[in-house]
Amino acid sequence: MNGAESLVRSLLASGVDTCFANPGTSEMHFVAALDKVAGMRCVLGLAETVVTGCADGYARMKGKPAATLLHCGPGFANGIANVHNAARAFAPMVNIVGDHATYHRQYDTPLTSDVEGLARAVSHWVRTTTSSQRVGADGAAAVQAARTPPGRIATLILPADTAWNDGGEVAAALPVPSRTAVAPEILRTVAQALRSGERAMLILSAQALFEAGLTAAQRIAHVTGAELRVPTQVPHMVRGRGRPPVDRIPYAVDAALKVFAGVRHVILVGAKVPASFFAYPGKPSVMSPPDAVTHVLARPEQDAVAALEWLADELGAPKSVPVPDVERPSLVSGAFEPVSFARTLGSLLPENSIIAEDGVTSGRQLLAPTFGAAPHDWLQITGGAIGHAFPCATGAAIACPDRKVVCLQADGAGMYTLQSLWTQAREKLDVVNVVFANRIYKILQGELINVGAQPGPASNELFDLSRPEIDWVALSGSLGVEAKRVDNLEGFADVFRAACGGRGPFLIEFRI
Amino acid sequence: MNGAESLVRSLLASGVDTCFANPGTSEMHFVAALDKVAGMRCVLGLAETVVTGCADGYARMKGKPAATLLHCGPGFANGIANVHNAARAFAPMVNIVGDHATYHRQYDTPLTSDVEGLARAVSHWVRTTTSSQRVGADGAAAVQAARTPPGRIATLILPADTAWNDGGEVAAALPVPSRTAVAPEILRTVAQALRSGERAMLILSAQALFEAGLTAAQRIAHVTGAELRVPTQVPHMVRGRGRPPVDRIPYAVDAALKVFAGVRHVILVGAKVPASFFAYPGKPSVMSPPDAVTHVLARPEQDAVAALEWLADELGAPKSVPVPDVERPSLVSGAFEPVSFARTLGSLLPENSIIAEDGVTSGRQLLAPTFGAAPHDWLQITGGAIGHAFPCATGAAIACPDRKVVCLQADGAGMYTLQSLWTQAREKLDVVNVVFANRIYKILQGELINVGAQPGPASNELFDLSRPEIDWVALSGSLGVEAKRVDNLEGFADVFRAACGGRGPFLIEFRI
Repeated sequence: MNGAESLVRSLLASGVDTCFANPGTSEMHFVAALDKVAGMRCVLGLAETVVTGCADGYARMKGKPAATLLHCGPGFANGIANVHNAARAFAPMVNIVGDHATYHRQYDTPLTSDVEGLARAVSHWVRTTTSSQRVGADGAAAVQAARTPPGRIATLILPADTAWNDGGEVAAALPVPSRTAVAPEILRTVAQALRSGERAMLILSAQALFEAGLTAAQRIAHVTGAELRVPTQVPHMVRGRGRPPVDRIPYAVDAALKVFAGVRHVILVGAKVPASFFAYPGKPSVMSPPDAVTHVLARPEQDAVAALEWLADELGAPKSVPVPDVERPSLVSGAFEPVSFARTLGSLLPENSIIAEDGVTSGRQLLAPTFGAAPHDWLQITGGAIGHAFPCATGAAIACPDRKVVCLQADGAGMYTLQSLWTQAREKLDVVNVVFANRIYKILQGELINVGAQPGPASNELFDLSRPEIDWVALSGSLGVEAKRVDNLEGFADVFRAACGGRGPFLIEFRI
Repeated sequence: MNGAESLVRSLLASGVDTCFANPGTSEMHFVAALDKVAGMRCVLGLAETVVTGCADGYARMKGKPAATLLHCGPGFANGIANVHNAARAFAPMVNIVGDHATYHRQYDTPLTSDVEGLARAVSHWVRTTTSSQRVGADGAAAVQAARTPPGRIATLILPADTAWNDGGEVAAALPVPSRTAVAPEILRTVAQALRSGERAMLILSAQALFEAGLTAAQRIAHVTGAELRVPTQVPHMVRGRGRPPVDRIPYAVDAALKVFAGVRHVILVGAKVPASFFAYPGKPSVMSPPDAVTHVLARPEQDAVAALEWLADELGAPKSVPVPDVERPSLVSGAFEPVSFARTLGSLLPENSIIAEDGVTSGRQLLAPTFGAAPHDWLQITGGAIGHAFPCATGAAIACPDRKVVCLQADGAGMYTLQSLWTQAREKLDVVNVVFANRIYKILQGELINVGAQPGPASNELFDLSRPEIDWVALSGSLGVEAKRVDNLEGFADVFRAACGGRGPFLIEFRI
């Protein structure tokens, strides 16, 4: 058995059975091994940022890593942006990066590059396999590293000769470390803060955004009056009717500062200190008041759910507390406007759907108006590397073939990863893509003013996407995804309803 | 004056007057400074790999760097593949990468990343500016580093507060180091080898591929019978009628070994040891015979032209020697076939045009059949990071607005950087794009067999681009570039001739 075959078998033994790929010559033995070994699903992406973004969306929905198959340093580099987003979402990922044969590197041929240097900059775990005998064990170690809480990026570099040489050995799965428990003194301190009667806010992220964590947090809120919030970007959250309606911390600094005004205890549950996305001259970086006490209840790799449940019990919360009954929002008509759009979406959203969101300026007010939507999962761009929704939705649809996926993608951002549409068409994935076509990097108009600068001809030139206008319907069709254009909410409602009623990929260009 | 303005003024003082950009919030003061300072042309790319690929094509034609403006680690990462190609082409480039304000990094907000780590992996020079007072000087140092022979990648990381704070100082241009001279003992040894009567081959690259180097090399060949070759990939070569017809070293190993059979002296002139692009089991990495002597006449940063001219004189070559008169090739009709296509192209190529080539399997036999084409410049993908021709052609057209640019792009590779078409449309660039639409990663079919593996369902799945077929005409049109489809050489000739007769961007999908 050659090294490549031992790697495929070892990945399968460790539970990795899906591989998003854009291979090259150095990965040919891995590709050939896929024909010898049953059970590994391979999905082609036409650009590596699609490949890694798919792996991110897949992992968020499956709670386990996919493999990616990437070609040398430049191939890996093309995928880094969505590796970055995945890392910020605690999405486990096993990158297999083919490289030159060990003895060939010395000739510095065109694709030779500092693969390890690139990998280290964005991975939690990096290893270069040194022999075909080691490949299987290295693969198992990579999966173990990826599955180590809260979910990590593991990158295994595979020189071509370690793949093609004989002597491969299949490795068994390695144990996955458990989440660590929160120390009792932390729990007691937080309980005391929550009992103090002073205004407290729990900021929930990561593990705390699923059913059990939200339920426990709701119990705490019920009994203490503490406020619940999620960060501006969340990796994966279950929400909709019947689930605690938790709003985000606003992106805009002034609005965020208002949310925190008067808060005396900030309790971080898998979340970071609430800082603004960017720094702005003369504004604070941290959104919570300087005199508030920040408690780290649980780091992302800790057992936040157990901590929340302990607290709820300790604070005497009933096992079951009422969740506010928010009505399903009604349809709105007229021109696009973020809240109106959110209401319309919330009205029509199919039961048990998955939303992948990278709506930028068009997507900032989606949460509150959709509290009453049908239950759904929400995946969001977490690392600010734009163009995330297209591939994330694609990977989520591979992970959950029986659920409708709704992709909310800003147009400027979507141009980074439009190749995802081709993979959706090829795999006949059940994704309804909504492109917010405002034909401008609108966020930057606001940011220019936020940082104290003035708009002018240069900024107009660099933010404008209307010369020429991008025809998303033709673009989508050219990649095999049927599309329609709408320019108001009633038109959107009609097309979205019809698209959700069918199966297979569809794209709606919403002209704003 | 704030730091950003001092940087723009310092770049201009150092001769950098073109900036390819995809900015974000952290770059807003740089954008604002462009309105205060006249003279910096800014060109927007809708993905960073377009931005860096444009900067590469621009630098190859201008012989001086453009700036790129990129957003944080992920934005830089998206551009790395074409930075890699540029580095391998000795194309100077000054990357300006905006990052969080110095005091904001500690909060590890979403876009925080190891920008320096990423930059170091692909740059010759990296610096993070520490204050607005230093920005101008750092900018001048970056340009100096980029212009240091043979042409380097300089990456300047610009924390937002160093851009917005006052105290900026404009820096004067720093001296650009000269190429170093080749040592006399090297020259004498090579002269002796060339006089020996043993079979010798000069491999010419980098500086040696322009008029003066080729002329001197031709004189040497004329008087000694030495063979001239260029590497499989060349950064920039002048060629066509009246210029020495120098063929490339074939990509395929067996063909390359044949070219070197019997060669006793390999003389490297700005080129590397001739190694195969990839390693293959059971085949050698180095193409020249084991008993051949390899002479490094000039490293890329040395003065190869002076060395060649000294040798030509020393060997008694006449100052002017005849260049083989190769006839302009004739039109060929019928289905696509690489040599027939090359002849047709060579027949129709406009005088003084620029070719950017990333044709992969369709582009491997372009050189010899076009020796007799009208004089032109040839830019080629040098680092194996595919999708290079689209942005390279775009940047070359910005650099040389009065010349016709012909972009030869394989379809699978082109999908990496198709956003370039939008920039061509926006800037009304005079580029005729030819997409070789074979609807397959055809190179990988061959490579799978070359590495000793067998085709099967997995390889079919991962190499196939025909499910769904990509409609390049619709895709191009959606981005503002008029396009036509052809499926034979006579159809190509008609459309190509018409496109060359007009101005502005055009795309020809050649169905293969």
